Amino acid sequence: MSDTENSRLERLSGMLKRRGIILPAFEIHGGAKGLYDFGPVGGRLRNRVNQFWIEHWTSLGNITEISCPTITPYEVLEASGHVGEFSDFMTDCNSCNEASRADTLLEDSHPNPDNLSKSDLQDLLTSINPKCPSCGNSDWTEISAQNLMFSTTIGGGKSGRQGFMRPETAQGMFTSYPALYRHYRGRLPFGAIQVGKGYRNEISPRQGMIRLREFNMAELEYFIDSESKTIHDFSKWSSINMNLISDDGNEISTTIGDAINSEIIRHPTVGFFMAQTYDFLINVGINPEKLRFRQHESDEMAHYAMDCWDAEIFGSYGWVECVGIAHRGCYDLEAHEKATGKTLRARREFNEPKTVEIDEWTIDGSVAGPAFRALAGEVKKAVELLPSNTSFPMDVKLESGQSVLVEPHHVKRNQRTEVISGEWFIPHVVEPAFGIDRIIWHILDHAYDESSKGDEIYTVLKLIKTIAPVDFSVFPLFEKDGMDIIAGQIHSRLCSKAGVVSIYDSSGSIGRRYARADEIGVPICITVDHQTVEDNTVTIRDRDTGEQQRVPMESLF
Amino acid sequence: MSDTENSRLERLSGMLKRRGIILPAFEIHGGAKGLYDFGPVGGRLRNRVNQFWIEHWTSLGNITEISCPTITPYEVLEASGHVGEFSDFMTDCNSCNEASRADTLLEDSHPNPDNLSKSDLQDLLTSINPKCPSCGNSDWTEISAQNLMFSTTIGGGKSGRQGFMRPETAQGMFTSYPALYRHYRGRLPFGAIQVGKGYRNEISPRQGMIRLREFNMAELEYFIDSESKTIHDFSKWSSINMNLISDDGNEISTTIGDAINSEIIRHPTVGFFMAQTYDFLINVGINPEKLRFRQHESDEMAHYAMDCWDAEIFGSYGWVECVGIAHRGCYDLEAHEKATGKTLRARREFNEPKTVEIDEWTIDGSVAGPAFRALAGEVKKAVELLPSNTSFPMDVKLESGQSVLVEPHHVKRNQRTEVISGEWFIPHVVEPAFGIDRIIWHILDHAYDESSKGDEIYTVLKLIKTIAPVDFSVFPLFEKDGMDIIAGQIHSRLCSKAGVVSIYDSSGSIGRRYARADEIGVPICITVDHQTVEDNTVTIRDRDTGEQQRVPMESLF
Repeated sequence: MSDTENSRLERLSGMLKRRGIILPAFEIHGGAKGLYDFGPVGGRLRNRVNQFWIEHWTSLGNITEISCPTITPYEVLEASGHVGEFSDFMTDCNSCNEASRADTLLEDSHPNPDNLSKSDLQDLLTSINPKCPSCGNSDWTEISAQNLMFSTTIGGGKSGRQGFMRPETAQGMFTSYPALYRHYRGRLPFGAIQVGKGYRNEISPRQGMIRLREFNMAELEYFIDSESKTIHDFSKWSSINMNLISDDGNEISTTIGDAINSEIIRHPTVGFFMAQTYDFLINVGINPEKLRFRQHESDEMAHYAMDCWDAEIFGSYGWVECVGIAHRGCYDLEAHEKATGKTLRARREFNEPKTVEIDEWTIDGSVAGPAFRALAGEVKKAVELLPSNTSFPMDVKLESGQSVLVEPHHVKRNQRTEVISGEWFIPHVVEPAFGIDRIIWHILDHAYDESSKGDEIYTVLKLIKTIAPVDFSVFPLFEKDGMDIIAGQIHSRLCSKAGVVSIYDSSGSIGRRYARADEIGVPICITVDHQTVEDNTVTIRDRDTGEQQRVPMESLF
Repeated sequence: MSDTENSRLERLSGMLKRRGIILPAFEIHGGAKGLYDFGPVGGRLRNRVNQFWIEHWTSLGNITEISCPTITPYEVLEASGHVGEFSDFMTDCNSCNEASRADTLLEDSHPNPDNLSKSDLQDLLTSINPKCPSCGNSDWTEISAQNLMFSTTIGGGKSGRQGFMRPETAQGMFTSYPALYRHYRGRLPFGAIQVGKGYRNEISPRQGMIRLREFNMAELEYFIDSESKTIHDFSKWSSINMNLISDDGNEISTTIGDAINSEIIRHPTVGFFMAQTYDFLINVGINPEKLRFRQHESDEMAHYAMDCWDAEIFGSYGWVECVGIAHRGCYDLEAHEKATGKTLRARREFNEPKTVEIDEWTIDGSVAGPAFRALAGEVKKAVELLPSNTSFPMDVKLESGQSVLVEPHHVKRNQRTEVISGEWFIPHVVEPAFGIDRIIWHILDHAYDESSKGDEIYTVLKLIKTIAPVDFSVFPLFEKDGMDIIAGQIHSRLCSKAGVVSIYDSSGSIGRRYARADEIGVPICITVDHQTVEDNTVTIRDRDTGEQQRVPMESLF
C-alpha cells in the first residue's frame, strides 16, 4: 500500500470512528480485537443495507425470509462438517503469548501457505522462524489446529450439552428444509434467506471490518431440481460486460449470458445469482469498475461444490472477497439426512409414468407368521428393506432395535412390475453468501471523496440516497427570532415520516454545518433563516451538486 | 388453565408450527430446548415488528439506532454486575440428570420461592423433596448458583480471554455513551436503541416463546439530566384510561397524565415511555383490554432503580411481562466509569455563573523546582489532586507510577475564588426494554380467532395489515387457459413492489385456498378466473369482512 493510500485509509477510518459510523467496540474497556460497533450514524446504514438486501431477494417471488437461532447444538455442526473441518493452524509466541495463524506468519515466504499441510507448515515455520508481529521475537510453540467456532454450553449441571455460535446462517436454512418444502407446497425451485450474525473465532483478527470475529451476514439457500431445465431471463444484463476471472486465471470482460453459453459459468442459476449480486452491489453504491467475479480453482473449492464464484471488491485493502456464490450440489441436505435419518427430499413427477421391475425379498407368511408371531409385521418390513442380493440365514435388525434370525424357509422372492409416477430426490443447492460488513466497508470506501479546499481536505461521503443513514440535516441560521422553533418543527415533522431520519444542527457557521453533513453523506440540508419566519420558505442544498434552492417549507413533507 | 384454553393453545401452537410461523429449532436433529425458529411465514413477521419498533422510537427525533456485538468481554459484564449477580439457583436430579430451577420446583409450596435465600431454598427443597418434572423421582443434588450467561472464549491459545453472549443489548449503549454524546453534540436528552439477540442460559426453559435461551430484544437507553425539568406533552393520551397496578397492589384505571400528577408514576419520562409503549403495542395488534402496567414493589426492583413498570399482556399463559420500563438513575454509567476510569458525563451549564472558593495544595516552585527537577511538573499535578486535608510529609504517586516523598516545605496552600459556568455530571437513564418474542407471541394469540364452520373449527389470524407477514395471496381459478400465466404475472409484479410479499397458490378449491390464507392472516386474496382473461379484472376478497369485489387488475399495483 502506498503512503498516500495508507493515509487516506487512516483518514477514512478516523472519520468513521469520530462521526460514529463504525468504531471499535467496548473501547472504554480497552476494546476487543475483531469486534466493531455500528455507531449512532452507522446503525441505520447497516439496517438499510440489510433491508435492501432482503427486499432484493424476496422481490423475486419464490424466496422467503426466516430467522434461526445463532446458538447451535453440536450435532447440527457435526453433521455439516464444521466440527471436524472448520479450523486454522495456529502457533503461540512463547515470548508474549500472542497467538498467530501459522499461514499468515509465512505469507512472505511461500506463495500459498494456506494450502500447506500441517507438517509442511511446521517445517516452514521452523526453517523461517519469523518474527512475532506483536513483540518481534521468534520463539514459537508447535503448530496446532484451532477450531474457529465459539464454543459454549447449553443448559447447566449434568444435562448441559455442547453448542457453538453458528459460523454461518446457512445451516438454519437446511435444518428448516421440511418447513420450507411445506410452505412452497413441494414446488421447486424455492429459496430461503436469512440475515443475521455469524461468528468466527479468528486467531488473530486484522484489517478492521474485513476480518471480524462477529459479523453481519446474509445468505440465500436456493433449492433446485438438478434434472429440471432451469430457465432464467438474462435480457436485463445483455449489454452489461462484467469482469470475470475464470479458474484458469484468464481475465474476461463479457456478459453473464455469454459466459453461461460458453460454459465458463457452469450452471445458469449460478450465473443468474451473479447478475443479481451485481445489481444489488451497484444499487447500494459499489463502483462497478472496482467489482469482479473470480471463479474458484478446483483445489480451492470444497470437494462437493460444482462451481463457485467470489464477488471481489477493490478498496483500501486491495481485492477482497465480499460475496461467494456456490453450487453446492446435494451435499448439505444429504449430510443432514445421514446424520438424522430424516428425509430431506422433494418429489419429482415423471412426464410419463414408468414401469419398473421389482425383485425383492419378502416373508413367506405361512411359515414366518407362526415362527415370529407378534413380530411378524416388523420382520416383514425389515426383510423388504434388505438388498435383493441378501442371502439367508441372517440376523435381521428390527426397527425396535431387536434382532431376529431369519432363515431361508421364512422368506420368498417377490417379483413384480410396478408403475410409478414419480420419485423422491435430494434437491441441489445454489448459495449466494454475502459478508455485509465487508460490503458496507467498501460502500464507505467508494463513497469517500476527498478534495482540497484551501489548505484543508474537504470530504464528502457520496452515499446513494436510499441507503444514506441520515436523510436530512436541518439548520436554524440562528437559535433566536423563532428560527430555532421553526427548524425544530421541520426536524420533528421529517422524523415522524416513515423511513425518514433527520438531524437538527445549530452549532457553528452554516458552512461548518454543511461540512459536517457532507462528511457523513447527508443528501439534503435545509436552512431556516429570517426569510423563513416571514414567508415559510427554506433553502435546500444538494450534497452532490452544492446547488441551493429556495422552496416552500410545506414541499418538504 | 382450563381444558378449553389448553386445547386452544395446542391448536394455536400446532398451526404456528405447521404453517411455518414459529417452530422449534433444529427439530430434525431432535430440537433444542428454549430455541425457536421464525419460519417461512414468521420470518417476515419478526422483521416487520422489529422495523416498526425502530421507526416508532426514531420518529421522536432524538433517538438513534446502533448495533453492537453480542459477544462481550468479561470486563464489560463484570462492570455491569452480570458476572456477579445474574444467576439462578439450580439442582440436578440424581436419577435422570435433568437440571431444574430450585424455585420452580417449589412454586406450589411457597408464595415467592424466587425471593428466598440459598439456604432457605435448600431447607425447603430438603423438606418438601418435590418430584422431578422429567422422571418423577425425588433425589436432588445440593443447590448451587448457576450464572445465566452463555460463556465462551475469545481468541485461542495462551491469549484467549473469557467472554459471554450478552444477556441484554443495554450494555452496548452504555459503552457507546462517548460516541452518542459526541453525536448529539452534548445536548441532552437523547437516546440510543438497539434491536438484536439477547441470551440467557435458562436452567430449564418452558412455556414456548415465553422463556427462551436466545431471544429477540429491543431496548432504548434514554439519557437525561436529572436536574433539568422534563416536559412531555401528554395531550395525545388525555382520554385514554390505562390499567395500572401500583406498587401497593391497587388496580387503577386512569390516564398517564393523571398518574404522573398524583405521583403514582414517579418521573414524567417514565410515564411518557409507558404511553409510547402503549401506542406501540396497540399499533402492532395487542388488545388494549389485555394490557396492563404493573409497578415493581420495592423489594422486586433493583436497588438503584427509582421506578419501574412492567407492561404485562394477558394470553394463553396468563399475565406475562413483555416490556420493562425502568428509571435506572446513574447506576450504569457510574459502574462503567468506576471500572474503566473513563469519564461518562455530560456538561450542565448554569443559568448564572457560580463563584466557588477553592482551597487546595500546590507546590512551592522556588523550593520544589530544584528539589524535583524534571519531575516538578508531574509532582505539581499530583499534589493539586490531593484532598485539601492531606498532611505532609507523604509519599505521592505520580502519573508515571513513580512515587516521591513530598515534604511540608515543598508545598503551600492555594486559596482563591473561581467563577465557573457549569459542571460535569453523570446522566440518569430511563430504559424501556422490550421482549420481541413475547410480544409476537401475544400478537398471534390475540389475533387467533376460532369460529365453527359446520363441524370444523375455522381459524382466521386477524393480524394488523401493516405487520401481516404476507400481504396478498394470488389464486388462478385453474392452472390453464392463461389463468395461471396472468396469476403468475400478478404475483411477480406484487412481489417486485417495495415492501410487498405475495404467495402464489394454485392447489385445491378456492374455498380451501381462502382458508389457507386466512389461517396465516393474509389480508387480501386475489382470484384470477375466466373473466380475467377477457377483461383484465380480478376478484379481491377481504380477510376480515369476507367481502368480494371485482376490480381492474391494474388497480392492484
